Amino acid sequence: MTSIGIGLIGTGFMGKAHALAYRSVNAVFGDVPEVRLELLCDQPADKADAMARQFGFARATGDWREVVADPAVHIVCVTTPNKMHAEMAVAALEAGKHVHCEKPMALTLEEASRMEAAAKVSGCKTIVGYNYLANPIYQHARKLVREGAIGKPVHFRGFVDEDYQADPETAWTWRAIRAEAGLGALGDLGCHLVSLMQGLMGPVATVVADVDTVHKTRPVEGSDERRPVENEDIASALIRFESGTTGLLSTSRSAWGRKSRIGWEVHGTAGMICFEQERMNELQIYQNTGNKAADGFRTILTGPAHPPYGNFCPAPGHQLGFNDLKTIEVWNFLKSIAGGDRAYPDFEGALEFEKVIHAIDRSAARKELISIGQVSGGNPK
Amino acid sequence: MTSIGIGLIGTGFMGKAHALAYRSVNAVFGDVPEVRLELLCDQPADKADAMARQFGFARATGDWREVVADPAVHIVCVTTPNKMHAEMAVAALEAGKHVHCEKPMALTLEEASRMEAAAKVSGCKTIVGYNYLANPIYQHARKLVREGAIGKPVHFRGFVDEDYQADPETAWTWRAIRAEAGLGALGDLGCHLVSLMQGLMGPVATVVADVDTVHKTRPVEGSDERRPVENEDIASALIRFESGTTGLLSTSRSAWGRKSRIGWEVHGTAGMICFEQERMNELQIYQNTGNKAADGFRTILTGPAHPPYGNFCPAPGHQLGFNDLKTIEVWNFLKSIAGGDRAYPDFEGALEFEKVIHAIDRSAARKELISIGQVSGGNPK
Amino acid sequence: MTSIGIGLIGTGFMGKAHALAYRSVNAVFGDVPEVRLELLCDQPADKADAMARQFGFARATGDWREVVADPAVHIVCVTTPNKMHAEMAVAALEAGKHVHCEKPMALTLEEASRMEAAAKVSGCKTIVGYNYLANPIYQHARKLVREGAIGKPVHFRGFVDEDYQADPETAWTWRAIRAEAGLGALGDLGCHLVSLMQGLMGPVATVVADVDTVHKTRPVEGSDERRPVENEDIASALIRFESGTTGLLSTSRSAWGRKSRIGWEVHGTAGMICFEQERMNELQIYQNTGNKAADGFRTILTGPAHPPYGNFCPAPGHQLGFNDLKTIEVWNFLKSIAGGDRAYPDFEGALEFEKVIHAIDRSAARKELISIGQVSGGNPK
Amino acid sequence: MTSIGIGLIGTGFMGKAHALAYRSVNAVFGDVPEVRLELLCDQPADKADAMARQFGFARATGDWREVVADPAVHIVCVTTPNKMHAEMAVAALEAGKHVHCEKPMALTLEEASRMEAAAKVSGCKTIVGYNYLANPIYQHARKLVREGAIGKPVHFRGFVDEDYQADPETAWTWRAIRAEAGLGALGDLGCHLVSLMQGLMGPVATVVADVDTVHKTRPVEGSDERRPVENEDIASALIRFESGTTGLLSTSRSAWGRKSRIGWEVHGTAGMICFEQERMNELQIYQNTGNKAADGFRTILTGPAHPPYGNFCPAPGHQLGFNDLKTIEVWNFLKSIAGGDRAYPDFEGALEFEKVIHAIDRSAARKELISIGQVSGGNPK
Repeated sequence: MTSIGIGLIGTGFMGKAHALAYRSVNAVFGDVPEVRLELLCDQPADKADAMARQFGFARATGDWREVVADPAVHIVCVTTPNKMHAEMAVAALEAGKHVHCEKPMALTLEEASRMEAAAKVSGCKTIVGYNYLANPIYQHARKLVREGAIGKPVHFRGFVDEDYQADPETAWTWRAIRAEAGLGALGDLGCHLVSLMQGLMGPVATVVADVDTVHKTRPVEGSDERRPVENEDIASALIRFESGTTGLLSTSRSAWGRKSRIGWEVHGTAGMICFEQERMNELQIYQNTGNKAADGFRTILTGPAHPPYGNFCPAPGHQLGFNDLKTIEVWNFLKSIAGGDRAYPDFEGALEFEKVIHAIDRSAARKELISIGQVSGGNPK
Repeated sequence: MTSIGIGLIGTGFMGKAHALAYRSVNAVFGDVPEVRLELLCDQPADKADAMARQFGFARATGDWREVVADPAVHIVCVTTPNKMHAEMAVAALEAGKHVHCEKPMALTLEEASRMEAAAKVSGCKTIVGYNYLANPIYQHARKLVREGAIGKPVHFRGFVDEDYQADPETAWTWRAIRAEAGLGALGDLGCHLVSLMQGLMGPVATVVADVDTVHKTRPVEGSDERRPVENEDIASALIRFESGTTGLLSTSRSAWGRKSRIGWEVHGTAGMICFEQERMNELQIYQNTGNKAADGFRTILTGPAHPPYGNFCPAPGHQLGFNDLKTIEVWNFLKSIAGGDRAYPDFEGALEFEKVIHAIDRSAARKELISIGQVSGGNPK
Repeated sequence: MTSIGIGLIGTGFMGKAHALAYRSVNAVFGDVPEVRLELLCDQPADKADAMARQFGFARATGDWREVVADPAVHIVCVTTPNKMHAEMAVAALEAGKHVHCEKPMALTLEEASRMEAAAKVSGCKTIVGYNYLANPIYQHARKLVREGAIGKPVHFRGFVDEDYQADPETAWTWRAIRAEAGLGALGDLGCHLVSLMQGLMGPVATVVADVDTVHKTRPVEGSDERRPVENEDIASALIRFESGTTGLLSTSRSAWGRKSRIGWEVHGTAGMICFEQERMNELQIYQNTGNKAADGFRTILTGPAHPPYGNFCPAPGHQLGFNDLKTIEVWNFLKSIAGGDRAYPDFEGALEFEKVIHAIDRSAARKELISIGQVSGGNPK
Repeated sequence: MTSIGIGLIGTGFMGKAHALAYRSVNAVFGDVPEVRLELLCDQPADKADAMARQFGFARATGDWREVVADPAVHIVCVTTPNKMHAEMAVAALEAGKHVHCEKPMALTLEEASRMEAAAKVSGCKTIVGYNYLANPIYQHARKLVREGAIGKPVHFRGFVDEDYQADPETAWTWRAIRAEAGLGALGDLGCHLVSLMQGLMGPVATVVADVDTVHKTRPVEGSDERRPVENEDIASALIRFESGTTGLLSTSRSAWGRKSRIGWEVHGTAGMICFEQERMNELQIYQNTGNKAADGFRTILTGPAHPPYGNFCPAPGHQLGFNDLKTIEVWNFLKSIAGGDRAYPDFEGALEFEKVIHAIDRSAARKELISIGQVSGGNPK
């Protein structure tokens, strides 16, 4: 394949991130097929036209089915609201397209499972937009854990917080309706942390959880009415991994001051590794050497020694940004398409993350421990 | 009362901290009765003699019952291993002495309840060594929370970690025996966090917990044998406060790199407050003003504006130390004795903290949600 | 002008940064003329061909004069070694091209002055790659200073450090030859700080400086020889601004552990603002409110409230990266070309920065105070 | 000598710090002669009485000459305003007393030189209150530098800032009068940094300096008048050490937000060490190992591995405070008296620091480079 045609559905936060990444990937990395920005879809059609011009796509449409059907499109990027992911992704796969879908996969596990099944049948490549996995310093952390740099992992803690729903007077939107938006903080933020956690600690076996909707109602804009919020603002869970190790996680979309906090720490028998996304170019590591006068947490700044940072900048410490992670994600996807390997996380891999967040939701609702093995698309809450 | 005689039992870590605090309190604070360092007890007696000389006590003994019986002693400080607290404290109370006991109160809730009952009967004053409560910046944080500086609290997270049991090859001691040492990380570290948490969030209603003994056995010094560790290295709990608010806490004595980590964050409807004991003179606060270009976490350095810092130093930011907290604790106790009010936390107050850590232990053992109301001294696990 | 053709000379660190920025600018910002990547130059020609393919340029050449002469090229990007800047930039200006030149402008002030004169004559637009000026949080800091958020500035301190020449055994290169590379740390790093400082504090009046070549010789690769280093590893200066305010700066290319440190602090009569490039999405501000219990340094995370951050990402705190700054720089340049205004810093603006670093060099050499007014291209050291 | 009698002159900020330290030193450290708090002097006499009671001194007086003459007093602590240091210290030495004098030594170099001469003649021990030298982590840093942990030092930067004179409307006091208070920021803050710097880098050879009185006048309380400020708010200097190495320092008493900033960094050929007093229990060290993926700044928390921290607390990371440093200083002085060695910095040692700050003052006044060798007490500005 000498070039790959991209069809992008959606031009919001993630739509733009996809556009920028596909536009940059060839220049940053010289080793993947050439990308053509072929067809962009948004509604109404004149918005699609305008955004196609801005993002550099050759053509535009107001009908996503045209993207799926277009012979010049090889990859369909699904960046629409979550409730549309399943239909679009399945249609694209059935049309023989590779699918780059944003997270979370879908509103329900049932939908996500259908997507995963469709991918399996199709033989096409898939990837889900867990972009924080693409951070070179995260991959370095995984390598360190795997190589035993902190001994054997014995405990995990993770947090992902933002404050976009912290103000009690933020207006009610469809995001508060479960049937429209699915889970709350878990679906929007928590799943990212699960993706990072699993890479460090392996699969989750069981969860015991508690959730809370801090702001029970929200004002409807332009009226005196307040409407109920149906999904969680905060969720916390105690975790047992398949390895038997313990952990915990917590997520909030109502955490004032946190703009993009994704903090985690892995405790090991010989050290500890910690990370905070708001300082995404830093990793903290403590390694016991037995020299009590000298040991301490070391701050590693990302650099060319942490591939593929060097493809962006030959000098260390100069800082990658949020959008650069998407470019790496796209690079990973293009390599998988070119090379025939699976990308990570494809629909099968990402389904594991969705199972965990839905298990947390279920544990909180039923007030009982839930095994991930119990949770499946065919057995909705 | 023109002067108060101190009897100190124990000269270890906490014994020395008590000695330094009682020795300094009059000079730091001019407003409490004069302290006389009357009688010091340790074993063997010649060690007691030597330590009395070093610490400035008038007399020494090898028999703690002499301290309790001594007419010149008004306050008995109990800084011995935890399993001796109950007997000593009760004896002192029965002898009409005020008691300053180290934390945790005792090995079991039953013992702690007996201590609390004895205090009630005695009419004497008591205080338990939850020294981190004495930190001026913590008291300032409590004031801020109470005054609504971050709105209404909606979530709590807390962590207390050290690494003194992180090395798998650290030798086995009596600390690993439940009948000798009681709980593990919960008893040594977790209870501190509970004391801080309750001051910020109010009483705990229920806990759901998980604990883990990371290092199942430890080597016996001077032999090839390894013996089992009977209490937990790590404990984590999901919490519901009586207010209905959610929270979580976690503690580890096997967390490499953490030397005295006591971190907590209170999420509110209008802001957030965070603290880390390893930077014990700093408080982080975020207050939503609606000015998105300007809002951020503010680091407050402790100073004379946070009483009683100014009694130690008239210049802000110059740093209190760990031992200064004990001096403030002693000051609080002396004021309660002089003024006839209760100190905080007295045996009644501290019993609440012990209930929470034992509820966590019980929840983990039984794998079920435990109400604090269910937990009492008469109903051991 | 409906589209603008780009000619890029050089494909190294900065060449790639230019390519990425010009490739992204239209998608990030919808409000500037469309960019066409027209002609790329490097040597040998087949490298130029390969890089043109990677970066997405339409054509390639091994001869930079072809870029300057090409009628489809409107902007010539000069990212070659510093000693070639003057010849290329002047030729491009004489050919009627706008010029985007990397910093520092040239080896000598005489060259830089010639460039500035050529720009004036040409009527073309110019910009010099002081990319750190493009950081939204830096521009926010400037706005805060200008608006009096910290009162009147009374003092400045700034530092720019890296460690690429910290190892005494790093091999000797042409960079150590003054006639090839010009100044050392001042030319490579110090000039960036000067650009930031001037934006915050206004023009420099005088400097008193000291410089040091820490590693006097370096090993020649593949031989036993060591050759002398002719330019400075470290330079420091005491500054008086035209306002009469004092300041100081220091720069080192031999500062182990610093990967991209550009730290500065502006002291004002009512507060302080601080910044560190290694955490380039954060700004620290202290504002005296008279409430001693509450005041502290506040950490502002860059977000949409700091334009044009929102063009990259609608969510705050998600982090811009190093390459994003170049995209903003390019946007500024395209707006100046489209709108007919001057870009900043154009050759005239950047010449001011060059004067300051050369004044520092001269002050250190002559061991005397140097007025910026004394320093000009026609009066070389 | 079985016990040592203390006579304390002054009960302000430093007077209280001395009282607390002499009161605690025996209990913290078991290895020095017993201290008796013998005689306290302040004015008026009833204040002296009250403070003697609070601080635990046996007797009080309103006349400092009684302290100097008292046969039960072995050590005279001079904590009065700077302009009284010389007369009191010399009188005490002439009376055969050891002298513990606060910093700076005196208003002028001439006075300081007289003190130094008197000490030499007397045969008594002296120490000057450069308490930050007593920080265990600072002494550890010195050891690391001396042992080559960061190779050979090649550069130094240091800063000491507070904000007690940052507000332009802070009232005028005698501190603004040169004849009463001597130097400004240099005398109050800068000399501390010089003491730390010299321990790390060795003696200073030359300085080139600039100073500024930011707030030229201050309001006289209770009137409309403003009076001039005669000494500097800010001072900065370029330094050459006797080793030939370069450095710089800067100090401000008008730096909003800085409460006790004493920051310094030593650049070495193999690493870097940094410190900030506002986090006085932490040290930052970067050591080049050649492993670019792993190297980073390491934060060392003070603990028992950094003597004499363990005398205060057996657990690492629990935090020393400001007053603990004075206790260590007192311990050092008592050891020198008991053992017959010189304490550091005694009057001879501290005179070196005073020379540096006066050289900075003189360099700024004369606008020329000043050699420390030129500066002496007999050659006042």
